[in-house]
Amino acid sequence: MLFHVFMDVRIPHDADPEKLKQLQAEEHERAKELQLQGKWLHLWRVAGKYANISIFDAESSAGFHAILSSLPLYPYMEIEVTALCRHPGSLESRA
Amino acid sequence: MLFHVFMDVRIPHDADPEKLKQLQAEEHERAKELQLQGKWLHLWRVAGKYANISIFDAESSAGFHAILSSLPLYPYMEIEVTALCRHPGSLESRA
Amino acid sequence: MLFHVFMDVRIPHDADPEKLKQLQAEEHERAKELQLQGKWLHLWRVAGKYANISIFDAESSAGFHAILSSLPLYPYMEIEVTALCRHPGSLESRA
Amino acid sequence: MLFHVFMDVRIPHDADPEKLKQLQAEEHERAKELQLQGKWLHLWRVAGKYANISIFDAESSAGFHAILSSLPLYPYMEIEVTALCRHPGSLESRA
Amino acid sequence: MLFHVFMDVRIPHDADPEKLKQLQAEEHERAKELQLQGKWLHLWRVAGKYANISIFDAESSAGFHAILSSLPLYPYMEIEVTALCRHPGSLESRA
Amino acid sequence: MLFHVFMDVRIPHDADPEKLKQLQAEEHERAKELQLQGKWLHLWRVAGKYANISIFDAESSAGFHAILSSLPLYPYMEIEVTALCRHPGSLESRA
Amino acid sequence: MLFHVFMDVRIPHDADPEKLKQLQAEEHERAKELQLQGKWLHLWRVAGKYANISIFDAESSAGFHAILSSLPLYPYMEIEVTALCRHPGSLESRA
Amino acid sequence: MLFHVFMDVRIPHDADPEKLKQLQAEEHERAKELQLQGKWLHLWRVAGKYANISIFDAESSAGFHAILSSLPLYPYMEIEVTALCRHPGSLESRA
Amino acid sequence: MLFHVFMDVRIPHDADPEKLKQLQAEEHERAKELQLQGKWLHLWRVAGKYANISIFDAESSAGFHAILSSLPLYPYMEIEVTALCRHPGSLESRA
Amino acid sequence: MLFHVFMDVRIPHDADPEKLKQLQAEEHERAKELQLQGKWLHLWRVAGKYANISIFDAESSAGFHAILSSLPLYPYMEIEVTALCRHPGSLESRA
Repeated sequence: MLFHVFMDVRIPHDADPEKLKQLQAEEHERAKELQLQGKWLHLWRVAGKYANISIFDAESSAGFHAILSSLPLYPYMEIEVTALCRHPGSLESRA
Repeated sequence: MLFHVFMDVRIPHDADPEKLKQLQAEEHERAKELQLQGKWLHLWRVAGKYANISIFDAESSAGFHAILSSLPLYPYMEIEVTALCRHPGSLESRA
Repeated sequence: MLFHVFMDVRIPHDADPEKLKQLQAEEHERAKELQLQGKWLHLWRVAGKYANISIFDAESSAGFHAILSSLPLYPYMEIEVTALCRHPGSLESRA
Repeated sequence: MLFHVFMDVRIPHDADPEKLKQLQAEEHERAKELQLQGKWLHLWRVAGKYANISIFDAESSAGFHAILSSLPLYPYMEIEVTALCRHPGSLESRA
Repeated sequence: MLFHVFMDVRIPHDADPEKLKQLQAEEHERAKELQLQGKWLHLWRVAGKYANISIFDAESSAGFHAILSSLPLYPYMEIEVTALCRHPGSLESRA
Repeated sequence: MLFHVFMDVRIPHDADPEKLKQLQAEEHERAKELQLQGKWLHLWRVAGKYANISIFDAESSAGFHAILSSLPLYPYMEIEVTALCRHPGSLESRA
Repeated sequence: MLFHVFMDVRIPHDADPEKLKQLQAEEHERAKELQLQGKWLHLWRVAGKYANISIFDAESSAGFHAILSSLPLYPYMEIEVTALCRHPGSLESRA
Repeated sequence: MLFHVFMDVRIPHDADPEKLKQLQAEEHERAKELQLQGKWLHLWRVAGKYANISIFDAESSAGFHAILSSLPLYPYMEIEVTALCRHPGSLESRA
Repeated sequence: MLFHVFMDVRIPHDADPEKLKQLQAEEHERAKELQLQGKWLHLWRVAGKYANISIFDAESSAGFHAILSSLPLYPYMEIEVTALCRHPGSLESRA
Repeated sequence: MLFHVFMDVRIPHDADPEKLKQLQAEEHERAKELQLQGKWLHLWRVAGKYANISIFDAESSAGFHAILSSLPLYPYMEIEVTALCRHPGSLESRA
């Protein structure tokens, strides 16, 4: 089942630059891992913003929540979730 | 270049059912055509709404506009556009 | 899997009263049916409004969409969907 | 009488992790207690967010306020309340 | 129990003036009746708008809904409801 | 003349608890005083929130502003003001 | 006492042009009258919109409502009201 | 002096196609005229919408209003205006 | 040319009271100066808020910006600007 | 390809004035550079605000993002992006 997520990253201005750099590296690793596992299907940057739009594939909303909340930058994100389903006009098999 | 589009279809309550059915059939055909041409990359239904989230691939915003405004149901859609670009953490080649 | 839905019914002022009454009767029947099937878990009226808040149980977002769009009053509803999952602090077994 | 509540937990980034952990444990206990007393009827997590949707049963809005403001994380929550009543189409006896 | 209601009356521009005048007269009568019964505690006009702010007293949200939906102009109102409770600093006995 | 006020109290998380407690006690006293003077007609708590809805009676908007800005917690409030006037359908004499 | 009003005129597209023209002429006359009486202190057009920003002087909100609702185009206006009072830094005597 | 305008064209669904076509042709002519006169500096289409973003040059807001309200499609536009001024970092001479 | 400005003053809670008092005194002086120069035509307090609504007269938007950004409290203000022009129904000569 | 950007600069009140002054100088330099390269086509100040409206020319949204995120004040900006395309009624050759 697919979930559409808009993630707006809001780093506080007084964040420790070293800690932030480390979190971003960990986020990068975790994103790679989840993509290789087929759980993070698409990851696009929103042009001009520190934000991304992503599509996740999970068996349930519980599984989806576990994935999202495992992201190192999760506590700094404003998140909007939209549940998707297959569109009758889509030629893609999965959804 | 990728464009993220949220399309909310708003059919007026007094629309002619026959004309509507025809427009929907034409929309279906056009969507198929654009997907086969590789211009409409993804098409997902928003669960619980007469709405979809789509990803288009176009050479420019002018090309993108031409695609979108060619949709038979275009006059009945509330549309939000977000320009996307490749995310450094994405493993997908295209974007 | 659970879906939380806010349904705001917006009947056009020039709707045919007879047709409306029939749609409402059909909506009532369909709601009963879906509750008996265990798909529409909760149905509450929002006090002071022609609106309800409901919890649906479906295997997937596709199944959920099929349920919701089968409602006779669906074309007249403004709908907001929120995907739910089990809360670690909940004592309820299902979710 | 039933109250529908959306609780969005907003922990300040500079909160003391130890104090936060303790508050969360106390919140967990209090939630359990209120559920066992039949006052907190449903508690669902909003998928992808540090937020929940809950249904409370109270004799009055004063009783409801007393319950909600007794939650240890109450000072950190953005809260939206909707008063519910029995829906004529619902098969549930209580509401 | 008290309910705070903001009622914004939205008469369609093509409404029949005669029917509207009759509805307004009936609304006036119903408002008088509910005030005499002690159910409609306060009724104030919002200065400069075709809108009012009211306080209702009802035993439950179901009773409140029955009152509100009995108003002849109910189908033409945009309504916002806020459940109230006694404020510890208030000197009024009721609430 | 009547003013309708929604006051949402927003205490900063790092406020000094002692100073806050004192301000709240002073607020309580001031509210009592203004009610006894017939200037603060109604004071209701919004169920589930650190907020209240109030009705003030003042000779002018200048007098109203003087009252409101004299509240000890005034600097911490988000405030919305609505000027009210007598509703032709109201049975209350004052307004 | 002064009231600040934003008036956004929303003429339905199917309005009768003759009736509209007459209403606009009557509105013009009424505006002139109210200005000469010193009740409509300022009347400015919002650049680029069919809207105005105005300042009214009335003894009370009831008097203000009577003025505003006497405008021939009143039924077609979206209206926002803000109660004003004298600013301690203003050099104008009235307010 | 420069004015930034966002124009969202909202054609009613029941508009007469012939009349609309004529208005669009007239709009086209008027836009050309105003550009040649140096009053309509820039005119861009918003990708994916029946909307444009434009920059007008006018001696005053009155002159700007006269220009905008002379557009044949003006009655069908939702308009947002932003007054611009020269940015100290801009290399353009005019503004 | 006239500009309508809504200024909402947002003093951070941890501001130095001495520095704030000085800024407010300077703001008072600057407001007096600009009024005497005929640039700040009207200054009204919004009843019940730390906010004002003002009308400025400036030769251009650049001149207006220079005036507004010269205010000592400018960095603490949320500001909304509306360009005004003479209304054909206004009896005032200037605008 | 053209991108329309609204940049609202939000400097935290506790920012170091020296560091801020340096960032602003660097921003000025970078803006000059990008204008000379033909990438930052237009830069206008929003009258009355610490904000600007700009038009960027980039080969793709990726190139646009690289430009925008290279701005020294980028971390302090609230940004809204709108993809533009040539308007059929525009007399400008580029877009």
